[in-house]
Amino acid sequence: MFADNLNNLILKKRSLLCIGLDTDIEKIPSILLSELDPLYKFNKAIIEATKDFAVAFKLNIAFYESLSIPGWELLERTLSSIPSDVLVIADAKRADIENTSQKYAETFLKSYPFDAITVSPYMGYDSVLPFLEYQNKGIFILCLTSNSGAQDFQFLKVEKEYLYQNVARKVVEWNFKNGNCGLVVGGTHTDQLKTVREIAPNLPFLVPGIGRQGGNLELAVKYSTDSEGLSSLIAACRSVIYASSDKEFADSARQRAKHLREQINRSVGLYKNPSWLGLN
Amino acid sequence: MFADNLNNLILKKRSLLCIGLDTDIEKIPSILLSELDPLYKFNKAIIEATKDFAVAFKLNIAFYESLSIPGWELLERTLSSIPSDVLVIADAKRADIENTSQKYAETFLKSYPFDAITVSPYMGYDSVLPFLEYQNKGIFILCLTSNSGAQDFQFLKVEKEYLYQNVARKVVEWNFKNGNCGLVVGGTHTDQLKTVREIAPNLPFLVPGIGRQGGNLELAVKYSTDSEGLSSLIAACRSVIYASSDKEFADSARQRAKHLREQINRSVGLYKNPSWLGLN
Repeated sequence: MFADNLNNLILKKRSLLCIGLDTDIEKIPSILLSELDPLYKFNKAIIEATKDFAVAFKLNIAFYESLSIPGWELLERTLSSIPSDVLVIADAKRADIENTSQKYAETFLKSYPFDAITVSPYMGYDSVLPFLEYQNKGIFILCLTSNSGAQDFQFLKVEKEYLYQNVARKVVEWNFKNGNCGLVVGGTHTDQLKTVREIAPNLPFLVPGIGRQGGNLELAVKYSTDSEGLSSLIAACRSVIYASSDKEFADSARQRAKHLREQINRSVGLYKNPSWLGLN
Repeated sequence: MFADNLNNLILKKRSLLCIGLDTDIEKIPSILLSELDPLYKFNKAIIEATKDFAVAFKLNIAFYESLSIPGWELLERTLSSIPSDVLVIADAKRADIENTSQKYAETFLKSYPFDAITVSPYMGYDSVLPFLEYQNKGIFILCLTSNSGAQDFQFLKVEKEYLYQNVARKVVEWNFKNGNCGLVVGGTHTDQLKTVREIAPNLPFLVPGIGRQGGNLELAVKYSTDSEGLSSLIAACRSVIYASSDKEFADSARQRAKHLREQINRSVGLYKNPSWLGLN
């Protein structure tokens, strides 16, 4: 089961940190550009430097897809360089009618060895079902996203609740099928994180938005974790992988990841489980 | 402008038919399987056989992506075999935070020569904006989808309206930016098509669900077209491309496409513009 694997790994590595590999030729250190295969070298160096502090890596599929065939090759090789004690999430935000979602699920959960995927809820249950059928994989459904556009629909009032709360309740129901659902809840919305955690006390949360997007890390950890301080992945991307653009970029990323993990663990220690204090 | 191009082409070809290329190795005629490159041969034969009756082809990206690198090669070669007087739509249903949507938009609207793309609304305006910035491309935003899961969220009551109506109103606003928005509205919901057309009298609609999914074709055409019988793409996929599995499959697809266009034009003629009657 994905949720159990995740929590065992969180305990083993004492980390909730998920590092996003939004690898972009325009943002990697210029020193790499004169080398052969700069994007792969960048990913490999970042993975190597941060893997001790990360419980998951999240590959933002848009960044690979936009490179066409070489991008898919980069994706494959990147997946091969991630050690087995780190989970790998396809941040794909796919979903379509059932026969099409089957194809998307097959791509990311069968052909490529991802442990989990992000999925959009707008088309409802039958569009999500083909993903849920991969029982050992984690299916993170968008609930409340970290961007400003979250206001447009996710905060619409549906009877007495907001749409995102409605999505959270549905996903709790959908989770009865195979116990492999999770929720994406942006770290930019700390009050709402608390509300969603109350609706879904045990689901794994994927929490983007605490780096460049400006979410409050301490509160995001406090409100996104379950009662034991587990079941949450705090995602950071640009703030870690582009921590520096000089030749020491990998070491800078390592320091940033280490520091983030310390801050996260401090919040787990303060609010959920004192045994995490001082465990850095 | 995409909407003008679309309507000019509809008038020139006297067709609202959009043919979906959901090409699947498990569904193509078995006679092709012994040949080299069966999927490309299938697509090429279908395009050749139906291009006279179609105003657009819609490539369902999931089916290409699921084949990994050979799938992207197939997509490129398929795009090259579509003549310039047929529009090409990327049925991708992407959208993410702004810097990520930029990458998705770049992939389908710049690197690949698609004329239009389908986009998911859940993440709101800033997730759609990077697509809208391609001023000459058509951006079809999911409004009311043809599948059963549409009930889960799209029919939630938001104050006095349903969520899908709210999405339609927002997209009418978003269209002020560059005049390049459209809506996906399933042909399985004929009453609602009428409602959405009232909210958005001039936007192009992409209408799936009238083939295997069982929508009523005559009413879907009646309610999805604008006041002149234009601005609608009636999408059919499996019912056309898999019309037969024998060696005459391309001719069967041609007959099915021809017949569908006749039925569509009859409905345009009956309800919107009598000059379309008898014009087959």
